[in-house]
Amino acid sequence: MAGRRALIIVSNRGPVTFDRGPGGERVTRRGGGGLVTALRGLLEHHDVTWIAAATTDEDRVVAAEGSSEVAFVAPEPDAYHGYYNVVANPMLWFIQHGLWGRGLRPDLDRAFHDAWRDYQTVNRLFADRVVVELDNNPGAAVLFHDYHLYLAPGYVRAARPDAKLAHFVHIPWPADWTILPEEMRRAVHDGLLANDVVAFHTARWARNFEVSCDEIVGGHARTHVTHHAISIDTAEFEGLAQSDDVAAEERGLEASRPEKLVVRVDRTDPSKNIVRGLEAFGLLLDSRTEWRGRARMLALLDPSRQSIPEYVEYVAAIERTTDEINARHPHAIDLQVADNFPRSVAAYKQFDVLLVNAVYDGMNLVAKEGPLVNARDGVLVLSENAGAHEELAEWALTVNPFDVWGQAEALHEALSMDPAERRRRRDGICAQVRRHDVHAWLDGLLADLDSV
Amino acid sequence: MAGRRALIIVSNRGPVTFDRGPGGERVTRRGGGGLVTALRGLLEHHDVTWIAAATTDEDRVVAAEGSSEVAFVAPEPDAYHGYYNVVANPMLWFIQHGLWGRGLRPDLDRAFHDAWRDYQTVNRLFADRVVVELDNNPGAAVLFHDYHLYLAPGYVRAARPDAKLAHFVHIPWPADWTILPEEMRRAVHDGLLANDVVAFHTARWARNFEVSCDEIVGGHARTHVTHHAISIDTAEFEGLAQSDDVAAEERGLEASRPEKLVVRVDRTDPSKNIVRGLEAFGLLLDSRTEWRGRARMLALLDPSRQSIPEYVEYVAAIERTTDEINARHPHAIDLQVADNFPRSVAAYKQFDVLLVNAVYDGMNLVAKEGPLVNARDGVLVLSENAGAHEELAEWALTVNPFDVWGQAEALHEALSMDPAERRRRRDGICAQVRRHDVHAWLDGLLADLDSV
Repeated sequence: MAGRRALIIVSNRGPVTFDRGPGGERVTRRGGGGLVTALRGLLEHHDVTWIAAATTDEDRVVAAEGSSEVAFVAPEPDAYHGYYNVVANPMLWFIQHGLWGRGLRPDLDRAFHDAWRDYQTVNRLFADRVVVELDNNPGAAVLFHDYHLYLAPGYVRAARPDAKLAHFVHIPWPADWTILPEEMRRAVHDGLLANDVVAFHTARWARNFEVSCDEIVGGHARTHVTHHAISIDTAEFEGLAQSDDVAAEERGLEASRPEKLVVRVDRTDPSKNIVRGLEAFGLLLDSRTEWRGRARMLALLDPSRQSIPEYVEYVAAIERTTDEINARHPHAIDLQVADNFPRSVAAYKQFDVLLVNAVYDGMNLVAKEGPLVNARDGVLVLSENAGAHEELAEWALTVNPFDVWGQAEALHEALSMDPAERRRRRDGICAQVRRHDVHAWLDGLLADLDSV
Repeated sequence: MAGRRALIIVSNRGPVTFDRGPGGERVTRRGGGGLVTALRGLLEHHDVTWIAAATTDEDRVVAAEGSSEVAFVAPEPDAYHGYYNVVANPMLWFIQHGLWGRGLRPDLDRAFHDAWRDYQTVNRLFADRVVVELDNNPGAAVLFHDYHLYLAPGYVRAARPDAKLAHFVHIPWPADWTILPEEMRRAVHDGLLANDVVAFHTARWARNFEVSCDEIVGGHARTHVTHHAISIDTAEFEGLAQSDDVAAEERGLEASRPEKLVVRVDRTDPSKNIVRGLEAFGLLLDSRTEWRGRARMLALLDPSRQSIPEYVEYVAAIERTTDEINARHPHAIDLQVADNFPRSVAAYKQFDVLLVNAVYDGMNLVAKEGPLVNARDGVLVLSENAGAHEELAEWALTVNPFDVWGQAEALHEALSMDPAERRRRRDGICAQVRRHDVHAWLDGLLADLDSV
C-alpha cells in the first residue's frame, strides 16, 4: 500500500456534528453509524478533508466560520428536506431494498418531481464544494458515499475532467430500476458512471449494477465496478464488549434470561424484516411445543426515521405482532424499542440464536459483531439477502426472508444443534471476521484508488 | 411452414367448459381470454389435443366420460385451491408483476408450503395426462402455457426424455425471484428448463429469464429461449367492431360523450395500475384548467379475481379514488365496473386518448385492439412496462407507470396533439398490428417447434 494520501471524503453525515449546550457553549458530538465508524480509521493515517451536510443550526454556524475538521455544505432547509426525506429516504432506500409494492405506491406526484430538483440542488452543492477542495489540493482522490450523492460525481467530472473519483454504495443494488422515471434513473446511472471506481459490499450488488447499467445506459464504459465487504474493528469491538457499561447490562440480562435466548438487534426499518421474525418465533412456539417456556425472543430495536410515515406504521406493526404472539404465548417476546448500545452488546454475548432475517441489506454488521463476542457458541440464522451472507453462509443457517415457516424451522434447528457443531460454526464466523476486518476493507478501497 | 401437425396444448383453462342448463341439459361455454382466443386458430389447421383443468362439476362429469374435445384433468378441489388461489394467484402473479412490497407481505407461512405441494400435485396430474396423450401420439409436440404449469414439463421430461416440449409464458418475467424460497424458485426454473423451447412475448422478458436462470441454476443449458409478441385477429376484430351490439353501445356513448374522451379498458387487477391512472386524470384537471368540463375519463373495468383479498381491496381503492376526484371535479370520471365487451369495443372506437399505464404487463392487447378500430385518430398513452411497448413505442406517448405527474402531462400532450400527428401515430400502430397479427404469432410458435 502507498503511504499518506490526500483524500476528500464526501458523505451526507460527517464524523462530527455541533450543537449548543445548556450554557450556550458549543458541543461536539461524534457521529455514529457503521459508515462513519469504519471511515474514521482513515483520519489518523491520511490527510482527509471530509465534506458533509450541516444538519443542525450550530453546524451552519460552523460552516459559515469554516472552522471545523468537517467541510460543511449548508443546503436550504426546504431543499434538504426534498433531497433527504423525499428522494433519498424513502424513495431510493425503498427501491434499493425492494420495499415498494408498486400496486398503489409509490406515487410520483408533482411534489416528487419538485423534490427531485432538490436532490439535484443539494448534490450540486456538494459537488461545488468538492471542486473547491480539489482546487486547494489537486492531487486528492475523492471518495463519495452512498445513495444521497448519486449525482454529485457527474457534476464534479464535468468541472474537473481529470479528477480521481470513487463512489462506495453501502446499500443493496437492484437490477430493476423501473420505479424511477427514465430521466431520473438515467441520471442516477450517469452520475455513478462519472466515477473511475464504483464499489459495493458484495459481488451480487456489483453484478446487479452491471445489469442495470446495461439496461439503462448501455454499459459501464470506463468505470471499474468492484466490491469490498465492509467490516468491523475487531479489537475495538472486543474491548467494548469488556466495558463496564456492557458488563452492567449483561448482569441484568443473565439474571432474567430463560434457558434459550433468541436475539435480534436492529433499527426499526422495514428492510430489517422484524415483523416476519416475530411471526417466525410465534410459529416456532405453535409448532414445536418443547420450546414453550424455555425459549424467549429478545428484540432490541433502535427507533429509526420516525419522520417518515412508513417507519411509524412499521413500529406499530411490530408492537401489534408482538402483542398477538404474547397473547398466545405469555412473555414469549421481550420487545424493547430504545437506543441502548451497551444492552445490545450484552445481548450479543448472551444469545443462543441470533436472527438476522433482513429483506435486503447492503451488508449487516450485526451478523459480524454478534458472533465475535458471543460467549455461548450461539448460532447465526442469516437471510440469504443480507450482504453478509456472501461471506458467512458456510457457517450460518440460511433463511429466505419471506418464508416465515422456513425461519421457524431454522430457529428450531438452531436451538437443537449440538454443541460441537455450534462451536465449529461460530469459530468459522470469528475467523472470517478477523481475517476480513475493517482495515482489510479500507485497504481494498485505497487499492482501488491507486489503480485509477 | 410445415403442414398439419400433432399438437398437445396444455393450459389451466381450456377452450370450452361445461355446465348444466335450467332443464338439466349440458351447456357448452366457449372460454374467453386472449390466450384461448389466440390459440383457437390452431384448432382448425392442426390435430390438437387440448389438456385443461376441469373447473365445473359438469367438466368433471365430462372428464370421467372422456367425451369432450378437451382432455380434462380433474384435481381434488382442495389441491386445486392451493394450486390456483394460493400459488399461481396471487403469489406467482404478484411476483411476476412486481406487486409484492416485501415489507410486510408476502408471508410464506405453513399454509403456503402446503399449497406449494398442491401446486406440485396438480402439475403432476397435468404431466401424467400429457404422458398418456404422448403415448397415444408419440410424434406430437407439447405446448405448455403460463404460470400455472411451471413444474409439469420437468415431470413429462423425466418420463419421456425424447418428447418435444415447449412452454409459452404470457406474463412478465422478472430477473429477481428472491421472494420464492430457494427450493421453489429452483423448481420453477428446472421445470421450465426441461422444455426444448421457452418463449415470452418480448425480448425484455426473455432476457430477464436468462438472467434469473444464470442466477438460480447457473445457465439455461440446452433450452432455446425466444420471444414472439402475441397479437389479435385483425379481420375478426374489425368485424366485431361493426356488429350490431357494438353499434348500439356506440350510439349511447356518442350521445353522452364530452368533447374529449380518455378511455381505459382493463380487468380490475392491481397490475393494470387503475388507481394511478385515475389520479393522473385528476392531476390533469387540477393543473391544466382548460380541460375542465371538456374532457372526461371513461373507465370500463371488468371485475376480476374477487375471491382474492388484494383484488377486493383494489376495487375499493378504485372506487374511493374516483369519488375523491369527482368531488373535486364533478362528473370527471365515469367509472363502470362490469363485464360488457361490446361497450368496451364501442369505447375503443370513440376514444381521443387511450390510457394503458400497466405496472407490468406481459403484452396488453388493449393497446393493439383500441387503435385498430378507433375512429378519431385517438392517441395511445402507453406504459414502458407493457410488453406492447416493445412494438408500439415509436407511435405512442410513453409513460412511467409510477409517475402520476408524468402521466398527467402525457394526457395533456395527447389531448393537445395536432390532427396530422395523431393520424401519423395511429396509422403506425395499425400497420404494425396488421403486419404482426395473431397468425404471425402462431407461425412463430410453430417454427420454434420445428427447430427442436
